[in-house]
Amino acid sequence: MAAKSVLTSQTEDFPRWYQDVLAKAELADNGPVRGTMVIRPYGYAIWERIQAEIDTRIKSCGAQNAYFPLFIPESYLRKEAEHVEGFSPELAVVTHAGGEELAEPIVVRPTSETVIGEYMAKWIQSYRDLPLLLNQWANVVRWELRPRLFLRTSEFLWQEGHTAHASQQDASTYAARIHMEVYNDFLTSVMALPTFLGIKTKGERFAGAVNTMTCEGMMRDGKALQMATSHELGQNFAKAFDIKYSADDGKEHFCHTTSWGASTRLVGGLIMAHGDDNGLIVPPRLAPIQVVALCIRDDAEVVSVAETFKSELNALGISVEIDAKSGSLGRRLTDWELKGVPVRLEIGPRDLAEGVVSVARRDTGEKTNIALAEVAAHVASLLETMHSDLLALSLQRRDDQTVTVNSLDEAKDAARVGFAKMEWSAVGDEGEAALNRETLSVRCLQRPDGSLPESPEEADLVCIIARSY
Amino acid sequence: MAAKSVLTSQTEDFPRWYQDVLAKAELADNGPVRGTMVIRPYGYAIWERIQAEIDTRIKSCGAQNAYFPLFIPESYLRKEAEHVEGFSPELAVVTHAGGEELAEPIVVRPTSETVIGEYMAKWIQSYRDLPLLLNQWANVVRWELRPRLFLRTSEFLWQEGHTAHASQQDASTYAARIHMEVYNDFLTSVMALPTFLGIKTKGERFAGAVNTMTCEGMMRDGKALQMATSHELGQNFAKAFDIKYSADDGKEHFCHTTSWGASTRLVGGLIMAHGDDNGLIVPPRLAPIQVVALCIRDDAEVVSVAETFKSELNALGISVEIDAKSGSLGRRLTDWELKGVPVRLEIGPRDLAEGVVSVARRDTGEKTNIALAEVAAHVASLLETMHSDLLALSLQRRDDQTVTVNSLDEAKDAARVGFAKMEWSAVGDEGEAALNRETLSVRCLQRPDGSLPESPEEADLVCIIARSY
Repeated sequence: MAAKSVLTSQTEDFPRWYQDVLAKAELADNGPVRGTMVIRPYGYAIWERIQAEIDTRIKSCGAQNAYFPLFIPESYLRKEAEHVEGFSPELAVVTHAGGEELAEPIVVRPTSETVIGEYMAKWIQSYRDLPLLLNQWANVVRWELRPRLFLRTSEFLWQEGHTAHASQQDASTYAARIHMEVYNDFLTSVMALPTFLGIKTKGERFAGAVNTMTCEGMMRDGKALQMATSHELGQNFAKAFDIKYSADDGKEHFCHTTSWGASTRLVGGLIMAHGDDNGLIVPPRLAPIQVVALCIRDDAEVVSVAETFKSELNALGISVEIDAKSGSLGRRLTDWELKGVPVRLEIGPRDLAEGVVSVARRDTGEKTNIALAEVAAHVASLLETMHSDLLALSLQRRDDQTVTVNSLDEAKDAARVGFAKMEWSAVGDEGEAALNRETLSVRCLQRPDGSLPESPEEADLVCIIARSY
Repeated sequence: MAAKSVLTSQTEDFPRWYQDVLAKAELADNGPVRGTMVIRPYGYAIWERIQAEIDTRIKSCGAQNAYFPLFIPESYLRKEAEHVEGFSPELAVVTHAGGEELAEPIVVRPTSETVIGEYMAKWIQSYRDLPLLLNQWANVVRWELRPRLFLRTSEFLWQEGHTAHASQQDASTYAARIHMEVYNDFLTSVMALPTFLGIKTKGERFAGAVNTMTCEGMMRDGKALQMATSHELGQNFAKAFDIKYSADDGKEHFCHTTSWGASTRLVGGLIMAHGDDNGLIVPPRLAPIQVVALCIRDDAEVVSVAETFKSELNALGISVEIDAKSGSLGRRLTDWELKGVPVRLEIGPRDLAEGVVSVARRDTGEKTNIALAEVAAHVASLLETMHSDLLALSLQRRDDQTVTVNSLDEAKDAARVGFAKMEWSAVGDEGEAALNRETLSVRCLQRPDGSLPESPEEADLVCIIARSY
């Protein structure tokens, strides 16, 4: 392959490699306003697949989609003190509209806790209205001075779930359920990326939350990326927005609320967790194009074979694109590698004369000749094998690059190339501050068996320390 | 039914009826910022169905989804003179972000022609890059002083397609294809609403377009609602944004562009085109809930029968919600009527003892007892019958309320209660201005056979005159 000359290599300059992949695989461009992003069709097709998979899981957990306004009165943000403090430096503010200066400036939503809180208060009267389980797919704006496409952009796309419950226990259970059944299940069973599950330290929590759960993924450069978070908001927003219900004894109580989200940042995570020096590697269950049928020559018989494969594979629920373009074969191969399409069928007259086509896997580069009649069944099973292989490889990489350490100094060394795991009691708030000064952070706290703790105060927790995006 | 006391009747006060339906069927609420809208879960579920049907059709026409930024530099809008003039009074402007005043104010997109034009210019080099067929699902903002939920809101959700072509002919053919295969097909074969197809007069065209195609639907009060539009933009935007390609002879040419869109306004159209004094009537192919299985009593046998129906119907691709709530049966019936769910199964112990359930159609109110084993097949066929009946009824209403007239005075009379059809040559620009002064407008121009003309200058056109939303 000529791909080596197309991309900067990962080891030479990882951030440059990332930029190269975005451009060469035609995933995204910088927008005209600082920090904004244009998501190109192939990048957006990946996002649509992420959306579809996450949306199905959210609906299975009983939440319903709704839509709340982009514009929020500035006064709403001030109602929850920690929340306004967390967001005020990042806000974009509309001061003029309809040809006039507005009496009250309007904020472009950085997240919708406040406006949704206001409506929950209207809609919830009694315990019979609970739990109220809402989700929204939307754009949000948080002004970024150092933007990076998909990872940190002034505008990004996401889903934000917002729920209200009668008890702390119910809220906590639901937030954890979303974390496991939506995010963790999507990440492992679709995106082939095992993450570290845990909760955030007090210092890393969402503004206004009492507990934040996170999935921390390891990128190919050993840095961490927060893939999704789920927050217990306690009664903080319920008190600020007066979200109350009357219990069956007629008494009024404040609700317990949660929020949880995942964003276009997942596309960045996909690129950096699986990609290699030849470009993207899209896990087969997520790929918008699972198979490319590459016609070596634009000849009627070759194209007709490609079309037969396409209908056979479509019937198995597998998406196929036929490439019968003219132009350099090498360039076309390189382009499909850059785009990370899992399986490539190379269909040429010479192979056809022998009754076979060449089937290539994007992840390992392995190529096999397969008899025409067996191609569809072979590809269907290959896609599942590739999913398992990618998942196993990601797990192995994550564990190989995670070192258990006993001191902050060892942690700092280990976190220069991967993750460090250390007893949280030996780090503490002071140790965390020291790590932050060296641009390292405690990504999450977890139980020694890797499961989610209930609070940072639980005994015997370990913490994951890393550089991060 | 007790519904008469729940809603204002259509004949008494149609706008009030519309507001009542929005509130009682829990479709939408006013947002906190003037003119914005909260789309509640049931309203959003209808929008998701509209999105899914339109998205599939757009993709079948070869366009790909992408995403462009919410924020547009103010200078972009000034590049196309008519465009800026059309939009400037409606813009929302961000002047502060990230805690600072911005050097250049930023506009919240009222539509994305300008920013997409800028990127098309970057992406298109040669004729081989054409046609470039893009679509975007997004929120847009046009400041509204007299908002009405779903019909006219300061923020609304829509899809906007943007395409670039090598020739005027290709652009024109594609814009018309979208109009017929996406919008008209969706409206008739899913939304059960035959519209008048035509083109806009010069005065009613989109800002910057050389031709605008429209689908004009008739609401139950005889007013017109523009359901979707498709614009030929000629080379206006290509020249303003320098969208050029080199032809196979190496010479450079400006592209011909199109844009086309449909929005959450369609939900308003759905309510007003089909609804009656008992609430919404959702056409069966569009309904997010096609069947409600209403358990007359919360008793184990009844619920188990409901669950059997649900799985039988789900297997036929029909969506079912089981209502086994406690509370007044009358109130529950009224609620499902308000929500316009096409078919209601009433499952009660007395009927079960006789081996039947009652199947009720929302549109006609007709109820039939059906043997348990035949319910699924009966419902599947009933849903298709209801689609045809609704389509036929809408067509009949439209034609009954459309009067062919010979003078402006007759047109004014006819348009007080429905649509007037008149020879365009007898109306002309002056007649149009006179109609506008009486809050009537020329909704579209069409050929006498109802088909799309190529331009307002074509001979023998007729025009449709109406009041409109």
